[in-house]
Amino acid sequence: MAEALKIGVAGLGTVGAAVVQLLSKHGGQIARKAGRAVTVTAVSARDRSRDRGFDASGFEWFTDPVEMAEKADIDIFVELIGGDNGPAEDSVRAALKRGIHVVTANKALLARHGVDLAGLAEANKACLNYEAAVAGGIPIVKTLRESMAGNDVSRIYGILNGTCNYILTRMEADGISFEDCLADAQRLGYAEADPTFDIEGNDTAHKLAILTSLAFGTKIASDDIYLEGITSITTADIQAADELGFRIKLLGVAQRTETGIEQRVHPTMVPKSSAIARIDGVLNAVAVDGDFVGEVILVGPGAGGNATASSVVADIADIARGDETPVLGMPAEDLKDYQRARMRMHEGGYYIRLAVNDRPGAFGEIARCMGEAGISLESIVQKRHSTGDVHVKYNADVPQPVILITYETTEVAIKQALETIMSKGVVAEQPQMIRIEKLN
Amino acid sequence: MAEALKIGVAGLGTVGAAVVQLLSKHGGQIARKAGRAVTVTAVSARDRSRDRGFDASGFEWFTDPVEMAEKADIDIFVELIGGDNGPAEDSVRAALKRGIHVVTANKALLARHGVDLAGLAEANKACLNYEAAVAGGIPIVKTLRESMAGNDVSRIYGILNGTCNYILTRMEADGISFEDCLADAQRLGYAEADPTFDIEGNDTAHKLAILTSLAFGTKIASDDIYLEGITSITTADIQAADELGFRIKLLGVAQRTETGIEQRVHPTMVPKSSAIARIDGVLNAVAVDGDFVGEVILVGPGAGGNATASSVVADIADIARGDETPVLGMPAEDLKDYQRARMRMHEGGYYIRLAVNDRPGAFGEIARCMGEAGISLESIVQKRHSTGDVHVKYNADVPQPVILITYETTEVAIKQALETIMSKGVVAEQPQMIRIEKLN
Repeated sequence: MAEALKIGVAGLGTVGAAVVQLLSKHGGQIARKAGRAVTVTAVSARDRSRDRGFDASGFEWFTDPVEMAEKADIDIFVELIGGDNGPAEDSVRAALKRGIHVVTANKALLARHGVDLAGLAEANKACLNYEAAVAGGIPIVKTLRESMAGNDVSRIYGILNGTCNYILTRMEADGISFEDCLADAQRLGYAEADPTFDIEGNDTAHKLAILTSLAFGTKIASDDIYLEGITSITTADIQAADELGFRIKLLGVAQRTETGIEQRVHPTMVPKSSAIARIDGVLNAVAVDGDFVGEVILVGPGAGGNATASSVVADIADIARGDETPVLGMPAEDLKDYQRARMRMHEGGYYIRLAVNDRPGAFGEIARCMGEAGISLESIVQKRHSTGDVHVKYNADVPQPVILITYETTEVAIKQALETIMSKGVVAEQPQMIRIEKLN
Repeated sequence: MAEALKIGVAGLGTVGAAVVQLLSKHGGQIARKAGRAVTVTAVSARDRSRDRGFDASGFEWFTDPVEMAEKADIDIFVELIGGDNGPAEDSVRAALKRGIHVVTANKALLARHGVDLAGLAEANKACLNYEAAVAGGIPIVKTLRESMAGNDVSRIYGILNGTCNYILTRMEADGISFEDCLADAQRLGYAEADPTFDIEGNDTAHKLAILTSLAFGTKIASDDIYLEGITSITTADIQAADELGFRIKLLGVAQRTETGIEQRVHPTMVPKSSAIARIDGVLNAVAVDGDFVGEVILVGPGAGGNATASSVVADIADIARGDETPVLGMPAEDLKDYQRARMRMHEGGYYIRLAVNDRPGAFGEIARCMGEAGISLESIVQKRHSTGDVHVKYNADVPQPVILITYETTEVAIKQALETIMSKGVVAEQPQMIRIEKLN
């Protein structure tokens, strides 16, 4: 058996500690599977004294990850620092420049610098693996880079953020508000103290940007993603979705259209019968439509130290075996320019929730606005506010909720129709609009 | 770019033709992803004149696949003939002996000769890839060989036969009998004219044998699989399952227990809320429980020419890139002997359907037999036969269906209890027994 592969781990948080522990616990098995032993020889973290659940005294210790990348006697630099610049970026670049392989779980770094780093890795004949950067323990990067190599992908979509999925699942299961669910998620450690990045969809967008490049062979274009988070979703929407046969999920979707590739992150109505609708709690799922394979769906834990470490170690084992897959599936110079499909040209069905001022003709006005925009309605649900008291008096001053489900139309038509409806004064508040995704 | 990789395809049925077409249609993309072009240069099939939807005039033609394996100027021999001996086995051995890489979709061959062929491949420094042999288009072989390398697997289970899943799905959806569903499946091309191999579970067992070896690092032991097909499942079972919150699926399960590894194929009660319960029709799904990653589930098409070709081409691309993964995840000599866990020691819950002779004390007798075998009952459902006519007379001569759901017990206890019940003459026919699988 070849000499042991020497690993340097930069960043000893939850994931870093789990990687060290995994390699120690399953070292024998990994050596048999990878054809050579894999040993952590160097680590980098700021605080040397903190107890991380393992004995770090045998490792060469670096306070500065860039110094470790530049000087340590290692074969693979494992970057688990995080962030799309600073020490994470600097250390990864330093390692690749030395021709040292890099394994990272850093989605932000790849979303921003992926193509550039891929070129740097290729120029220095180094691998850059990042299975853990997208959907944690789910092997979607390998599936796209390798297993789907013979397919033209038409669409890739998924639940890529466990925090959002946990919140949406709880809102439905327990009928509680977004704010209460978020507070619970924070208490349980499923959401950060500052949850903005998760709930506004940015985290999903980073992962989607990487998946889009892998799926379509295009340059990463994370700034070209249409972005809508889940903060506007109410229990009224969740309940209406349920009654109409849908569930609401925050999806990242990349789809080939006639005018280019759509990349979009938004709350989405998915049919209850679809596989993606059944993904509950903090789980992630990714579905890929390939022209030869059809639809393949991968489900699993999208986060957590151990699940993420599993992917990091798989990346290490690939390098140990000598597998050299191009960073973004093909040489960076072969990646096509990303051609953005305009969101206004998006086609699909829509869920619209209106708070209609209860005046004669209001409803006719709404129907007329939709018709004039060329939008056909698949269903209309008008509900009187119920107080549980059948004797409650009719009150024209309380706006009445009306739910519309449209047939397939365009984003521009919907936006125009809603603007017209707003301008007529027939609704009391900004309409809610949620896109419906066509799924098997 | 390196010289084109030369492919010989043996067997030009549905899958073989799809492989040729895929390589032709997506040749440019595959070359970019694999780092070199991939070209079919030789084919082997009996009937040269048949129209297969592509022009085969440019290929070197062999009537005998063994001759192609021995003499053709090829880098990869793609075996799509089928069968666990004869030309399939002979040609694969001949190719490997020449040091020519082999890609195959042949589960029967691998289930029977996998360890031996793995040794042969290793001795001749050839790859032997077989993603298409298990679950068609789903990348489960790669996931186990590579992505899960850092995990100890405790259980792997799945729906591995589309024919059976189609039949069970239709039985539930349309309330029709096994026989009618099978006839429909045959008419639609989802079942063979002789369906024995599918419906008796042998096909699932072949795939499970391969998965077990990959998941647990053991020698393939396809003769040690407990096997039960779906022919005994009635609409009464499907309906009772539905009412009790279950669905019935034919699962292949391999599980580590205290006494060894269980390998079993049988109809299984799975909770409706589980992901596996939602896999309908001809789809396949495989779930793996790893100690670090947790549970990962892969869903997709388990058969069909194009989906299978997608996996064959992924295997070819891996070889083109120079990836050399050990055939069974680790060198054949490192595989442990398979230690069989006796089925009688299997632990789990059970669904029992009895046709009880409607005599005083019959039910008490049954409860006593279960109690004496140490079995606790979670639920008991006794149903009068309903004819839709409320005035129907009570008839003590018609046996009454009774459904029992047990708490966790052992197979030996259940078998013993059912034997005793039979011997007491309180039931009119052989009891139905379906195992319940504990799932998340």
